[in-house]
Amino acid sequence: MKKLKGKIPVAILGATGSVGQKFIELLSNHPWFEIKEVAASERSAGKKYKDAVNWILTSPLPEKIGNLTVKECDTNLNSKIAFSGLDAGVAGEIESNLAKAGYYVISNSRNHRFDKDVPLLIPEVNPDHLELVKTQSYKGAIVTNPNCSTIGLVLALKPLQDKFGLEAVNVVTMQALSGAGYPGVSSLDIVDNVIPFIGGEEKKMETEPLKILGSLKNGKVKNLILKISAQCNRVAVLDGHLETVQIKLKKKASIDNIIKEWKSFTSIAQKLKLPLAPLHPIYYLEQEKYPQPKLHRNLDKGMAVSIGRLRECSLFDYKFVVLSHNTVRGAAGGAILNAELMLKLNYFNSIK
Amino acid sequence: MKKLKGKIPVAILGATGSVGQKFIELLSNHPWFEIKEVAASERSAGKKYKDAVNWILTSPLPEKIGNLTVKECDTNLNSKIAFSGLDAGVAGEIESNLAKAGYYVISNSRNHRFDKDVPLLIPEVNPDHLELVKTQSYKGAIVTNPNCSTIGLVLALKPLQDKFGLEAVNVVTMQALSGAGYPGVSSLDIVDNVIPFIGGEEKKMETEPLKILGSLKNGKVKNLILKISAQCNRVAVLDGHLETVQIKLKKKASIDNIIKEWKSFTSIAQKLKLPLAPLHPIYYLEQEKYPQPKLHRNLDKGMAVSIGRLRECSLFDYKFVVLSHNTVRGAAGGAILNAELMLKLNYFNSIK
Amino acid sequence: MKKLKGKIPVAILGATGSVGQKFIELLSNHPWFEIKEVAASERSAGKKYKDAVNWILTSPLPEKIGNLTVKECDTNLNSKIAFSGLDAGVAGEIESNLAKAGYYVISNSRNHRFDKDVPLLIPEVNPDHLELVKTQSYKGAIVTNPNCSTIGLVLALKPLQDKFGLEAVNVVTMQALSGAGYPGVSSLDIVDNVIPFIGGEEKKMETEPLKILGSLKNGKVKNLILKISAQCNRVAVLDGHLETVQIKLKKKASIDNIIKEWKSFTSIAQKLKLPLAPLHPIYYLEQEKYPQPKLHRNLDKGMAVSIGRLRECSLFDYKFVVLSHNTVRGAAGGAILNAELMLKLNYFNSIK
Amino acid sequence: MKKLKGKIPVAILGATGSVGQKFIELLSNHPWFEIKEVAASERSAGKKYKDAVNWILTSPLPEKIGNLTVKECDTNLNSKIAFSGLDAGVAGEIESNLAKAGYYVISNSRNHRFDKDVPLLIPEVNPDHLELVKTQSYKGAIVTNPNCSTIGLVLALKPLQDKFGLEAVNVVTMQALSGAGYPGVSSLDIVDNVIPFIGGEEKKMETEPLKILGSLKNGKVKNLILKISAQCNRVAVLDGHLETVQIKLKKKASIDNIIKEWKSFTSIAQKLKLPLAPLHPIYYLEQEKYPQPKLHRNLDKGMAVSIGRLRECSLFDYKFVVLSHNTVRGAAGGAILNAELMLKLNYFNSIK
Repeated sequence: MKKLKGKIPVAILGATGSVGQKFIELLSNHPWFEIKEVAASERSAGKKYKDAVNWILTSPLPEKIGNLTVKECDTNLNSKIAFSGLDAGVAGEIESNLAKAGYYVISNSRNHRFDKDVPLLIPEVNPDHLELVKTQSYKGAIVTNPNCSTIGLVLALKPLQDKFGLEAVNVVTMQALSGAGYPGVSSLDIVDNVIPFIGGEEKKMETEPLKILGSLKNGKVKNLILKISAQCNRVAVLDGHLETVQIKLKKKASIDNIIKEWKSFTSIAQKLKLPLAPLHPIYYLEQEKYPQPKLHRNLDKGMAVSIGRLRECSLFDYKFVVLSHNTVRGAAGGAILNAELMLKLNYFNSIK
Repeated sequence: MKKLKGKIPVAILGATGSVGQKFIELLSNHPWFEIKEVAASERSAGKKYKDAVNWILTSPLPEKIGNLTVKECDTNLNSKIAFSGLDAGVAGEIESNLAKAGYYVISNSRNHRFDKDVPLLIPEVNPDHLELVKTQSYKGAIVTNPNCSTIGLVLALKPLQDKFGLEAVNVVTMQALSGAGYPGVSSLDIVDNVIPFIGGEEKKMETEPLKILGSLKNGKVKNLILKISAQCNRVAVLDGHLETVQIKLKKKASIDNIIKEWKSFTSIAQKLKLPLAPLHPIYYLEQEKYPQPKLHRNLDKGMAVSIGRLRECSLFDYKFVVLSHNTVRGAAGGAILNAELMLKLNYFNSIK
Repeated sequence: MKKLKGKIPVAILGATGSVGQKFIELLSNHPWFEIKEVAASERSAGKKYKDAVNWILTSPLPEKIGNLTVKECDTNLNSKIAFSGLDAGVAGEIESNLAKAGYYVISNSRNHRFDKDVPLLIPEVNPDHLELVKTQSYKGAIVTNPNCSTIGLVLALKPLQDKFGLEAVNVVTMQALSGAGYPGVSSLDIVDNVIPFIGGEEKKMETEPLKILGSLKNGKVKNLILKISAQCNRVAVLDGHLETVQIKLKKKASIDNIIKEWKSFTSIAQKLKLPLAPLHPIYYLEQEKYPQPKLHRNLDKGMAVSIGRLRECSLFDYKFVVLSHNTVRGAAGGAILNAELMLKLNYFNSIK
Repeated sequence: MKKLKGKIPVAILGATGSVGQKFIELLSNHPWFEIKEVAASERSAGKKYKDAVNWILTSPLPEKIGNLTVKECDTNLNSKIAFSGLDAGVAGEIESNLAKAGYYVISNSRNHRFDKDVPLLIPEVNPDHLELVKTQSYKGAIVTNPNCSTIGLVLALKPLQDKFGLEAVNVVTMQALSGAGYPGVSSLDIVDNVIPFIGGEEKKMETEPLKILGSLKNGKVKNLILKISAQCNRVAVLDGHLETVQIKLKKKASIDNIIKEWKSFTSIAQKLKLPLAPLHPIYYLEQEKYPQPKLHRNLDKGMAVSIGRLRECSLFDYKFVVLSHNTVRGAAGGAILNAELMLKLNYFNSIK
């Protein structure tokens, strides 16, 4: 890849949506990738991006991107790497078609997450799963990242699974509004309220970790055997999913043991100094009222997970609180980190 | 008691606080009790109530109460029944002193909840515990109601404990701002935020149900043996504590079995038609996004508990969501219901 | 009208929308009217109302209404009185057609508000404008109520215009979310935010009062000549529009003069004891931090206007703060009050 | 001043308060100043800062500051420049005493703002007023910045006053919670609510601009003669005061004329490239729903003012919307900018 001669051109699929916008924000000054194309539905195609989009982020829309003409999500795209923030209603087929045609689709959509040959990837957790790509029949490839509520949980669990083994995981979430997209949750439903239901979310949290924490053998992922129970709630927070977690471990571990594993946890993403990789994937906060969405969601570029309140539990072994930024670590940022890892590990070889 | 000749005079202790105000609101048109005295700290004593209080409720301060002169919380009170919304910092001693002097103290404070001879009372759950009063050495008596986050949980559990037996209970709360009193939680701490910690709350939820669901034998309460694990969070909701609950039962029960027990649950409070008793202590709501604080906290005068989303759990047997109004059912309303039961069961005999 | 033999049957147009739902809530126990039909768009027609509606109110959907089959908004309706909460996109034609066919359309929609022969009616302000109906060429009639942000302002101005004359009015609003309908404002746009723009709202506030406060002469309304400047903002409040108002008067008036006019203000609606008429159309609150949406929007059934903070202004004569409930007084409740007045004044004569 | 040999040591007065914390955040990486001392009330003095403070900002407390020992606010301080975020209850005397003893007090408190020899300074607006310092009898000096709601207004008015002359200004504010300090506004008072009153605020807004926009002659400020009427409201926004403004001009000006003055406005602060000076003091935003607190408060380091919706007004000449960050531009950031200007203009000469 002629990276040295300049940045690698990339396209954003579903560019006008909320995840698409976050891709644009996070990639606008990226050292390796450069957004050259934005693609969306027929309705937007042909317009200037700034006229097609209802920009909802607090950082201003980069002028250069605003002046791009929106394209359709098809094989007329010139960029061979496409970040997908497509709606699940259309993502499945569009992504397959692009991969067949030789594109590398780095997707935040849920459609292909459980395809046997598609990695459900978190660079700090299962970088070896990237090898699945080699078993794909696509000329290009599809790589996915997990659901926004899964990723904080799995990052917190990974070092404990490695060191002590997990026997049971119970999680109750208080999820941010941005997780529902835009316009998403009506203000009339959430001011002075909590909604104790998010469609499909509990199943995602109970199944995705099993694949992510599974082991790769002979080109196949064998899911981890682990019972997870999840309950998901929507609260009046803009960004940042907070989760109360209870765990039962296979081996005995003290509070100090656990905190030590979290604090010392690092991975290939840190080793390779991937641009969006947090310095530390996990921060343990000592104050008993921490972590809090407003205070800690942006820690370490919004890519780190904050944990607090580790204490003994009468029903499980331990309970604690996890926070992660749902649209950064849990969506666009996570997908970009996947692409950074792929680049460093030469998974974009064919792009020349 | 010369009830027939008119209403029974009562005093409110801690009348200027948030619970005190709720006592005033809920008693202002009560068919049996009439507020004749309001008492508070030295700082307020001597002033007209309307000048001493920072009235925070949405219903207007009743004019008659506003013109009462605030008294001190001592044995100069004429009313023999005193509802206590006193701060825990002072409630312990004041309440003991009044009980010694012959007053009936119906308290919402936590100080005497675990006294061996003091009932921790929910009329629908453990009305028989009222007999503990007879073992008190006070000339009067002290009766307490549980913490605002306990009461919704225990009401939901009671019919299941009776029918199927409880083996384990796991609860995660999303609690309303009014639970912290006034001024309580700073707006800077909760707008766009969740606080995953409420001082002392988890211990209360893990211990109070054991006494309430305990059995009375030979004038003593034998606590229920049951493991409860609680995690408590503060969310940006004005009123109404929402709780996600998981249970393991001793006997097998289907979803229909459980819903039937909840829907048919009734008690002496309903039988005696106590003025503040809800028609049904428990409502089961079928919509999967229910219950919600804003929509259901005021159900049945704010005295009922709303339950929804009963479903199987991979770690426990079942999980569901409970909602109750924390300052009505969970505080002032609960205490008044206790007094109503005491009146009907002739516990105020000596007041003549 | 055979009122004595029972209630008068009415239909709700746009019954599934947010205003339609409020009509149902406020009419569900009405002493004179009874909802017999609910009508909505083709998409909903044919379904049971409870299956067609996404009920968003805190009071439960009355069972009887829930079981009605949704009809289309056409002349197959049996009820001769129709309350319209129709969207402005379709209200114009549907309402005209019904009126031509002999229906009495009591509309909350903006489409016909400025028709020369249609009253823009507030019973406490311009009951005489009802006579315009007699000039309508319809077999039935159309009567409208003003925009939700107009009505609080005009009620506050009316007694001052009558007594002192108005020379200039300046108003800045902080409007509630329910004013935008459902789903209306996205939570992502309003949590931790204010939106200083509401499409079309400022023009409505600057023009509607001129017609309402105009004088009826020879069957025509002559608009009041008065300069009004309005600035409209959306804030994170569920219900209740708060407005800061500045006025210049033609005659000299003291603060006491003005408050006296407000406090003593009454009208034919109070005299006739219309069911939804507030005891007092205007309440003046003495505390300098009042009125507040959360505390005072429900005053007097949500049909009264709360005013506070009257004080001198260096640019105008006086400034003050007005609050009114936008979906009760400002929409469904206002329309019902119009119908109540029409019934008492025999405007529904033909319905026998 | 031996600036070249290192940064200039400064102290923070009232360091544990909300403004004090913001001083620390904004000065923690300042190129010219270095916090060497933190001072607060007796209650905090002697403790480590991290133990004395309830840190409420989203950026972490700098470790170096956290380990400083809190001192008292007296003349034992070594740093000759002191930034004051002191409470108005104590600021007056402490600041005078320090100035007498030779300290340069850069104050955000209101106490000395109207002292005849104390500049009420905004570097972009009235840098010449700094000369007032020379008339002070203090060995050191006191310089103040205006109230948080004043500064956005005055920055918007300044270019118009210079070019067209102001005849009347009407302003209605929607102010953020952080303006009330910490804990400040109770969450129970502001969730689902607006409070149409802020003690003392309206008077500040009506008087401070007159001094700031006044002219300096013979060592005295002659206040501008201008009628301002202000109405102040508190809304559920964390940071960012939004203000609707109406103006009457002395000379005729078109919308384009005005926008041009705003866009081209610059000052000595920009010319000197003061570290905290915004690139542009004023941004005019074209979208009619802008500016909004959540979206634009952090524009240009939170030091710029955003303006939008300029349109004609039937009562004044024009109306528009202004937004500024109340704790950055309107408090700590504004004070630091004052000190930066003083340094560059050699007002700290005596510090050697």
